[in-house]
Amino acid sequence: MGNSKVIPIGDLEVFMRRAFSLSGVPELNAQTVTDNLLKAEMKGIGSHGLSRFPVYLQRIQKGLVNPKPQISITKAFPGVLTVDGDNGLGSVVMLEALKEGFAVTEEIGVCAFGVKHSNHFGISTYYCEQAAEKGLVSILLSNGPPATPPFGGKEPYFGTNPIAFGMPRKNKPHIIVDMATSVAARGKIIRAAQKSETIPEGWALNQEGYPTTDAKAALAGVLLPIAGPKGAALSLVAEFFSGVFTGAGYGKGVAWQYSGSEEPANVGHFMVLLKADSFLSESEYEERTETFVSEIRNLSRAPGFETINLPGEREWEREQAIFAQGMVIDPDLRGQFAEIAVKLNIETEIFND
Amino acid sequence: MGNSKVIPIGDLEVFMRRAFSLSGVPELNAQTVTDNLLKAEMKGIGSHGLSRFPVYLQRIQKGLVNPKPQISITKAFPGVLTVDGDNGLGSVVMLEALKEGFAVTEEIGVCAFGVKHSNHFGISTYYCEQAAEKGLVSILLSNGPPATPPFGGKEPYFGTNPIAFGMPRKNKPHIIVDMATSVAARGKIIRAAQKSETIPEGWALNQEGYPTTDAKAALAGVLLPIAGPKGAALSLVAEFFSGVFTGAGYGKGVAWQYSGSEEPANVGHFMVLLKADSFLSESEYEERTETFVSEIRNLSRAPGFETINLPGEREWEREQAIFAQGMVIDPDLRGQFAEIAVKLNIETEIFND
Repeated sequence: MGNSKVIPIGDLEVFMRRAFSLSGVPELNAQTVTDNLLKAEMKGIGSHGLSRFPVYLQRIQKGLVNPKPQISITKAFPGVLTVDGDNGLGSVVMLEALKEGFAVTEEIGVCAFGVKHSNHFGISTYYCEQAAEKGLVSILLSNGPPATPPFGGKEPYFGTNPIAFGMPRKNKPHIIVDMATSVAARGKIIRAAQKSETIPEGWALNQEGYPTTDAKAALAGVLLPIAGPKGAALSLVAEFFSGVFTGAGYGKGVAWQYSGSEEPANVGHFMVLLKADSFLSESEYEERTETFVSEIRNLSRAPGFETINLPGEREWEREQAIFAQGMVIDPDLRGQFAEIAVKLNIETEIFND
Repeated sequence: MGNSKVIPIGDLEVFMRRAFSLSGVPELNAQTVTDNLLKAEMKGIGSHGLSRFPVYLQRIQKGLVNPKPQISITKAFPGVLTVDGDNGLGSVVMLEALKEGFAVTEEIGVCAFGVKHSNHFGISTYYCEQAAEKGLVSILLSNGPPATPPFGGKEPYFGTNPIAFGMPRKNKPHIIVDMATSVAARGKIIRAAQKSETIPEGWALNQEGYPTTDAKAALAGVLLPIAGPKGAALSLVAEFFSGVFTGAGYGKGVAWQYSGSEEPANVGHFMVLLKADSFLSESEYEERTETFVSEIRNLSRAPGFETINLPGEREWEREQAIFAQGMVIDPDLRGQFAEIAVKLNIETEIFND
């Protein structure tokens, strides 16, 4: 197959929704999970984008992820929601939780929710953006299967545990901070392993605890957290809040979606939502936020930098561009998509040359 | 003066309280700020401990910090408190806010508060520990005077902005994560500059944007955030939540307590409190947290490590030991304390040889 065929986003979306739908995911939920994966890919976060599509489908088809979860949301306290995802797709569970969270925040000014029995939820940015669209500031933590050690350990225990923050702006893009607490997202190492590429030093240790640049050895060993003990502490925080605190799996109690594991992943998420105008009038909030952004942009630059970008800005710009222009899919992945079309008997020509 | 005189903590406490009291700080508040500085020092965080005592006093005596603030706390929403510190000492303002925050959390399950018109508040750990003692999980962010650049900048804009998290345990110590988002706390560089010591490479750039190990050049230049763009983004997050969002100063709008500035510092803080048993019963929470701690301790260790410590644990152990044994104060600092005693006419022999 050619390497540079451009596929319109709309065509890709229709195909992916259909594939989820044919695998038993209700139409609205198929739309959610498709949108979530596509946005990640368009933003340039390939590790959480289309490469997850075949895995998600497989887990659903094998009955390891529940395509029609009975998500239960109960109010533990006036400002706190307890969410049981019933082993549904992470993005589907999160959107349900967010919807209730928005209503609570409207009344209480703040809402904290904890999610258990969930699965991989893609990029945290997706949820912080949705909250920002509603005028809400947000904090979001999630865990994942064991990948990094605590400081002083050499055994995987914490996930690559993202921590994320959403800060709405009147003028887009919203400010979105979304980072793995490991040096690299595991998805990046998975892709390097798939392509037999090496990874930079500092990303991982092998099983014996020595530094490695071999992606497969890294997957068998342990990923390194950012910034030594500080990053390890942040991983611990995300594991605690999203796993221990919420009632979800934590540490080795979180299963890996790529393994042969027949156990539900029991991933946990924790989110805080706050009205952006909690402490100030809406106009004051907006004005201060725009001043903040423009002050940052206009600071004197370090050698080698032409601009100072706000977190999430370049990803958002890329998303707008790809949405308009369409997307080139990696040939291997395109092959996998074409196979899925054949298996599910979906007539499409978008993966042909 | 001798270098190793051990001063009992009780004696030091009496002296410091008296000094604050004689400078116009009401007795209960003098107790708070003394306790805050002493705990930092006992925990081994000297940058936020006794070295701040002369500076705090000076700012009060010059009228730059209000010794008798009229702290205003209003309920913006059922779960949100807006706090105006009236330029009081950070620790005094925070304890007032915490007290109200505890009451709100009891009812609502969660409380978020934003503080403006505050000052340096010492170690974040102090507040997360108090929340943990009440059985509350916490998130705390604060800003400070410009110290670090955004990613791509070479000009100070964000403070060394701590981010902190408190996770209560049935068995002490509570798990407390408390970190500057800069590689080093500015206090460490201040102390190095005072002693004409060098600082490690990677901590700071000089005014021209080049790496430096000269502590004074670092103070004139810019401190580096942890982990490149990720740390810079975390600094931005703390600046946003504690400054922009709350209505406090942000960026260059936060004044430095060491400068000749006659402006109030207008430091901001932001905190979220949550009931530890928000999502689970108290006994389930306790059991899971103890399992989490013991699993982490028992993971296989990296070469060179004899134990795996939980964040905040060694600081807490040090605090218990120093509290029992007393403290040796750096001779320079001891001289400053002795001078303060003379100036304020406090009769004490604890600083003599």
